[in-house]
Order: sequence, then C-alpha cells, then structure tokens
Amino acid sequence: MQRYFINQNADSDQRFFITNNEDIHHIKNVMRNHVDNELILNFLDQRVFKCKITAISQDAIEVEPIQELEISTELPQNITICSGLIKADKYEWMLQKATELGASKFIAAEMDRSIVKLNQSKITKKIERWQKIIKEAAEQSYRLTIPSIDYISNLKTLYDNIDGYDYILIAYEDAAKDGEISQFKSVLQQLTQGENILVIFGPEGGLSADEVTLFASVGKQIGLGPRILRAETAPLYVLSAVSYQNELLG
Amino acid sequence: MQRYFINQNADSDQRFFITNNEDIHHIKNVMRNHVDNELILNFLDQRVFKCKITAISQDAIEVEPIQELEISTELPQNITICSGLIKADKYEWMLQKATELGASKFIAAEMDRSIVKLNQSKITKKIERWQKIIKEAAEQSYRLTIPSIDYISNLKTLYDNIDGYDYILIAYEDAAKDGEISQFKSVLQQLTQGENILVIFGPEGGLSADEVTLFASVGKQIGLGPRILRAETAPLYVLSAVSYQNELLG
Repeated sequence: MQRYFINQNADSDQRFFITNNEDIHHIKNVMRNHVDNELILNFLDQRVFKCKITAISQDAIEVEPIQELEISTELPQNITICSGLIKADKYEWMLQKATELGASKFIAAEMDRSIVKLNQSKITKKIERWQKIIKEAAEQSYRLTIPSIDYISNLKTLYDNIDGYDYILIAYEDAAKDGEISQFKSVLQQLTQGENILVIFGPEGGLSADEVTLFASVGKQIGLGPRILRAETAPLYVLSAVSYQNELLG
Repeated sequence: MQRYFINQNADSDQRFFITNNEDIHHIKNVMRNHVDNELILNFLDQRVFKCKITAISQDAIEVEPIQELEISTELPQNITICSGLIKADKYEWMLQKATELGASKFIAAEMDRSIVKLNQSKITKKIERWQKIIKEAAEQSYRLTIPSIDYISNLKTLYDNIDGYDYILIAYEDAAKDGEISQFKSVLQQLTQGENILVIFGPEGGLSADEVTLFASVGKQIGLGPRILRAETAPLYVLSAVSYQNELLG
C-alpha cells in the first residue's frame, strides 16, 4: 500500500488533510484512488496508520485513520552524512541510497577540493530538488521520517556547530590506505540508542589536509576497509555497517 | 599512480606488453605518459608491481617491473551477486559500486518479474559494456582482480550449477518484512577465508514465489534490516556487511 508523510502528529480520533500537491497528484492521478480506498500515512511523531480516504478535492485528500501499524524502520542512531559536493548525478544517487539505508540528515558541503561549486542563486533550487529525492526514497523504503538536508559553503560552519554530536568520524582516504581498521568498529560497538553521529566524507579529490586538521581534535579518522571507495559509495558502506552492527548483530 | 590489469602472471625478470587498446589509449593519450614514466600493473596471479615504461608503440606499451607492492584489497570471501535484470542505469550503478565493495562475480539473470528483457542479439553487447564498467571500477578501487559477469535467461540454469558455492543466500523482501535478522549475521560470522557465497536478489518487483521455492532447499532466506532496500541497493548492503564483519571486526 502506498505511503505518504504528513506534517502533523497522529490522532486516531480525527481526520487529516493531505495538502502536499505532489502527494495529491500521486494519490489521485498516479494511484487513481477514490473515496474508501486505503493508504498508509506516516505522522510527524513517527506513528504510522492505515487510513481510509474520506474525501478527495482539488487541494486536499481527506483521510481517516483506521488502524495503527507497528513499524520500526529507523536506525537506532541518528547518522548525519556530511559530504563534499560532487557531480550532481552521483550526489543525488547517494542521497537516494543513503536515505534507503537510514541516514537521518545530510549536509552538502563545499569543500576545498570540490570541483562542483554552487552559486547562491542555485542553492535554493538544488535543496528543493534534493529534498524531493530524499522524500521519495523515504516513502519507498518505509522510513518513518524524512531526512533533512542543509548546504554549507565551508566546513568551518560545521565545525562551529558540532556540539550536538556524540561522535564525529572523518572518512579519510589516507586512513584507509594506512590500513586503519579499528576506529570505526570500536565506535560502532559502543553506540547506544539515540546517539548522534556525524560522518564527514570528502569530494572526488578527498578531504584537504586543512579540513582533516580542522576536525583532528574533535573527530576520529576512520578507515572503511582496504578498497578505495568513491565519494558517493563510502557513506553507503558506513550506513550499512551501522545497520549490520546495531540492527542485526544488535 | 594509475593502475592497469594484465592477463599474465607476474615475473620480475621479464618485460611485459600491455596490449589492451583502451589501456594503450589511456596510458598514451589520457595520462600522456612517455618512456621512463611509471604505472602500477595488476597481474593475473594477484601480484602488483610498480612498472617503468620502456617503450611505447602503436599496439603495445612495454613495461619493466621495478618494485613489487604488498597490496591486499580483495574480500576474504568470494561473493557472487546474482540479481534480476533491472533498468540499465540502476544495474550499471550497482555493478560499479558492488565492484568497489569487493564482489568477485556477477550473474545478470532474467527473472519472472524482470520488466527488462534482453533479446539474444543484445546480450553480447551488454556484457561487453558491463565488463568495461566493472574493469574501470576495479582499477579505480585498487582491486587485484576484475570481477566476471555472466548472463542467464532463467534461474534454473543457476540452480543446476550451484555445487561450487559454500553458502547460498536469498535476499527476500518478505524475510525483511517478517523481521528476519538472524540468518545473515549467523552466516557472516561463520565464514572462513576463501569460501564462495552466492547471494540472489530479485528485480524491482522482487523474487517470485516459484524462484524462492526453487532455492528453498539449498539456500537461506536472509533479511537485511527493517528498511526496504531497492534492488540495486541490497547488494551494496550485503557487501558492506561482509567487509565490516570479516575485514574490520575480523
């Protein structure tokens, strides 16, 4: 059954209105729903209900919650993926896959070696596009929340706002080349429910020495195995490993 | 330094000729190499040498091994990714990423729910294209071998040739939905060096009941965590988890 997100907390005693235009179009024209059809609604408080469509109008789909579903599809930890701007198709592919794999937040950062640069005028449009990709991937993969995405023009901005993170990990190619394999697992093995982890990945050319130095005192450099992973692949390795360690090995 | 593969075993006492046309073009025109420049050569026996270019001609680059490099970038196990044909761009992304993540073999299978079908005339061209993508990803990620790829028009063909595998795992969406989380980890935790693992993934629509039944007696159905992963994402989760369990947790 098709899933949609609504920006309100659940309440089984009231009806809700889906007002997002893309959702309305999808419900009416793509899925060809009519009154009495059912859909799944993810509420802001991460509760999920099977709902019945009670009215369809131009600007809203009215639904009535009929059954709460016990669903738990969020990673035990909140993983923020901060990665350097890379070619658009690669970055968008990473956003989609990392959302499927449970990332809770993205930070698109212009880094020293980013070949791709965004001029201020383009950023708003880009973020809208990225949010759409993330939202669709979140629906498709049964996520309970839609990961957020921010853009920063300099890693210093991030450094000045890292107080909220329990762990800061820097995926540094040289660490991988040096055969560093203990830092990442030791962090994953000590994670507890609800912790916030920031993982920083460079662009195609990798992180600069300055960028690595910037986080040296607050972060751990991690190697992700012996193979050299592309900028858009490394975040997927990290998220898969977090899931394996904490959801399967648990 | 740029890496290339050569289809011969290493021998530090002799010179070798790189005759692959794309490699010759890359060495001469892309990297603009000349005699006395160095490159890295991966030999068939998985030995790796820094080599010096001793001669450049129209149809061959002659190189002399000058220093053996101790490199170990292969997964401890041989993972074969058999997945249903999916949309071309998604399948090619998966091939590239799964090669980076250490897959040793691919089997592109036409499955019951494959929307994409290949007519016999297209298959040879497709396999050539896939091999090129895999080769480039293997060079870029410092692999010691180039994964192979086969096409099969029916899973029965695979079923008739599974004797060489130590484990057969079926990534079945329903297993994930049922919250199955123990099979995959229990297999990964008992793997030993050099074992051969076949992992079967469905196309966009998933495996059919018949296909699951076909392997029921010889394979284990595995869940890959609570989120629903797309056909092209699930293999990356499996390979990352194998690396994490056997290369990092080791």
